[in-house]
Amino acid sequence: MTAGSRADPAVGPPVDEAERRARIVLGWVAEPGDPDACRLVRQFSARELLDRLAAGSLPSTKARDWAARASSVSVDALRWAGEHAGARFVCPGDPEWPAGTTVLTTAGESVLGRRCDAPIGLWVRGESLAAAERSVAIVGARASTPYGDHVAGELAGDLVRGGITVVSGGAFGIDAAAHRGALACGGRTVAVLASGVDRLYPPGNADLLEQVARQGTLVSEGAPGCVPSRSRFLVRNRLIAALTQGTVVVEAALRSGSLNTARWARDLGRLVMGVPGPVTSAASAGVHELLRRPEALLVTDANEVLEHISPIGEALAAHKAGPTVGRDELDERSRQLLDAVPLHRSASAQSIARAAGLDPEDARRRLDALVEHGQVTGDGSRWRRSSRRE
Amino acid sequence: MTAGSRADPAVGPPVDEAERRARIVLGWVAEPGDPDACRLVRQFSARELLDRLAAGSLPSTKARDWAARASSVSVDALRWAGEHAGARFVCPGDPEWPAGTTVLTTAGESVLGRRCDAPIGLWVRGESLAAAERSVAIVGARASTPYGDHVAGELAGDLVRGGITVVSGGAFGIDAAAHRGALACGGRTVAVLASGVDRLYPPGNADLLEQVARQGTLVSEGAPGCVPSRSRFLVRNRLIAALTQGTVVVEAALRSGSLNTARWARDLGRLVMGVPGPVTSAASAGVHELLRRPEALLVTDANEVLEHISPIGEALAAHKAGPTVGRDELDERSRQLLDAVPLHRSASAQSIARAAGLDPEDARRRLDALVEHGQVTGDGSRWRRSSRRE
Repeated sequence: MTAGSRADPAVGPPVDEAERRARIVLGWVAEPGDPDACRLVRQFSARELLDRLAAGSLPSTKARDWAARASSVSVDALRWAGEHAGARFVCPGDPEWPAGTTVLTTAGESVLGRRCDAPIGLWVRGESLAAAERSVAIVGARASTPYGDHVAGELAGDLVRGGITVVSGGAFGIDAAAHRGALACGGRTVAVLASGVDRLYPPGNADLLEQVARQGTLVSEGAPGCVPSRSRFLVRNRLIAALTQGTVVVEAALRSGSLNTARWARDLGRLVMGVPGPVTSAASAGVHELLRRPEALLVTDANEVLEHISPIGEALAAHKAGPTVGRDELDERSRQLLDAVPLHRSASAQSIARAAGLDPEDARRRLDALVEHGQVTGDGSRWRRSSRRE
Repeated sequence: MTAGSRADPAVGPPVDEAERRARIVLGWVAEPGDPDACRLVRQFSARELLDRLAAGSLPSTKARDWAARASSVSVDALRWAGEHAGARFVCPGDPEWPAGTTVLTTAGESVLGRRCDAPIGLWVRGESLAAAERSVAIVGARASTPYGDHVAGELAGDLVRGGITVVSGGAFGIDAAAHRGALACGGRTVAVLASGVDRLYPPGNADLLEQVARQGTLVSEGAPGCVPSRSRFLVRNRLIAALTQGTVVVEAALRSGSLNTARWARDLGRLVMGVPGPVTSAASAGVHELLRRPEALLVTDANEVLEHISPIGEALAAHKAGPTVGRDELDERSRQLLDAVPLHRSASAQSIARAAGLDPEDARRRLDALVEHGQVTGDGSRWRRSSRRE
């Protein structure tokens, strides 16, 4: 993601204090990511939308729900709850507003019939989001295996060493392994929560998420006090996908929630990557299904991820190949001859020529050349393969 | 592969006895798959080529080698050696000549600069090759892991149960596991050897290969007595690829020989498939490299292989999906409400409505509907999730 500038035309100008306060209220009143709320905020501004809700001038059931909730909340209480949790409310146009979210506005409701929009605001704890310009999401099964945890941890560690911020969802399993791997390398990691930044969920990951808040960043679209729910996880997933250059799925059962993040990544034009695993492991079955789709890229390590997310990465990625074989440089007949030279005992030129199906004189000449190349050793009458090659 | 008919225009008419004898000699004289020998046989016939070699009318070094070798061999001795091993010599035009080899002639030397051609003849032990019309190659690392052996064996067993012949190279590791898996299910398997059918290689697999000869088919382009060599393995690989509808690689280190078979499959227009494994396993690294290429298909079981090799297979392949979730059938607000209903304790409509951010009356109506759908249970004042779903 790129740091939003103060006048990013796709985001708009920074908001004033009244608008900020109205967004804080609306962020509590409406479901995180509610597309109608987002659209109305863009249409009217949050402040005017609140006024209209208070005046009862919007006829929908949703608007009535919002009006009821808005009348029962105090922006100062929300702000205090956020500050108490060490969080700040970030609006579009703020310097640390993640430009990656813009894609959610432009994608609008057109993306495969699923409704999505950019957040009205984000509650943020820890480092500035703007500092994490190059980022990759690592997501996966909560019911991960030791294999998946290991791979996610290594991948996260290697990515942060490559200057990449590792974004995940703070859940048990792969998410936690990714955050831990990044933290262990002193790297930057961002946890995007489905609950408020004051409600660390799951409670079993509270210590880990506190450490993320200290060393990296916690983000939530939900207001302080917001409890997690399945819808909120799904809506949160779009943020993980939008904030990053690509999403890597490490272990996912069929129909796993992390595949939902991968679909968001695809729909938002981000890279979709998957780490394969044993086909005998149900925890990898969803990744393998994903990898059978045309948009998904198979990755086995951080270098391959770097290769995909930036052309610069290509230079970092070591070319994978087995050892160079001098044999490849030989012509066909010499290769044929070399293959006939015994490995573990020596043989006469005559017998080697016979085994290779070559003329003995030609074979003899070629054997001498192979000795010069170091592929064969011989005493002039008997030859065998050199041990230093192949 | 499709059984060659007696007058397949791509193969030519069946050969007469003199031509058959000449091909037996040339099959011993020239390297298996030697493209010059194949071309000259097509140009002159094997009989005339032998006459020209004897007359010294072909000037190349290769031709001189061939002439020398041809003068030192007896066709009857070769035939006797073949018969002694229980093998027959099969020529293009014979009923069991595998039509799949035609692609090697038409591909000629144009394929990526590598020289290949159809065999002059094949030594065959066991069942007719023609009986194996639908076939898949399973190849892979000799230094396989228990994971790879398990996967190859299961895949082979499931494929033969689906009426597919499993073709492999008779080597240690994945090849052996594939042959064994097919045999264990009483299925048909073909081992394509780089050595003569009387020289079972590796010797450690001799018992297995004898069983393949009894229950399936052993095939070699090499004459009886032909010893295996690296060139011959590489040439043999093109036959494995040509004879089958697709090649599945199960475990392969980087630069593994089985990747050579996969390249042949690609170049010959056959399907290239790979079974992923742990990214922490060097034995799967070559497969993962393969799967990153655009032509390669990731497969995790026999159904997925069947899906790829024949449209009929689609019906056989079970659709992979998690359990159907009734939740998906709900509208947005009811989903939001359902998410707010506690799983492990019951809650009042008021508290559920608050958590969901919905109007209490609307929430109450929706809760009743969720009870009807079986997703929620309640006593009229308190509700919780039903245990029978999700």
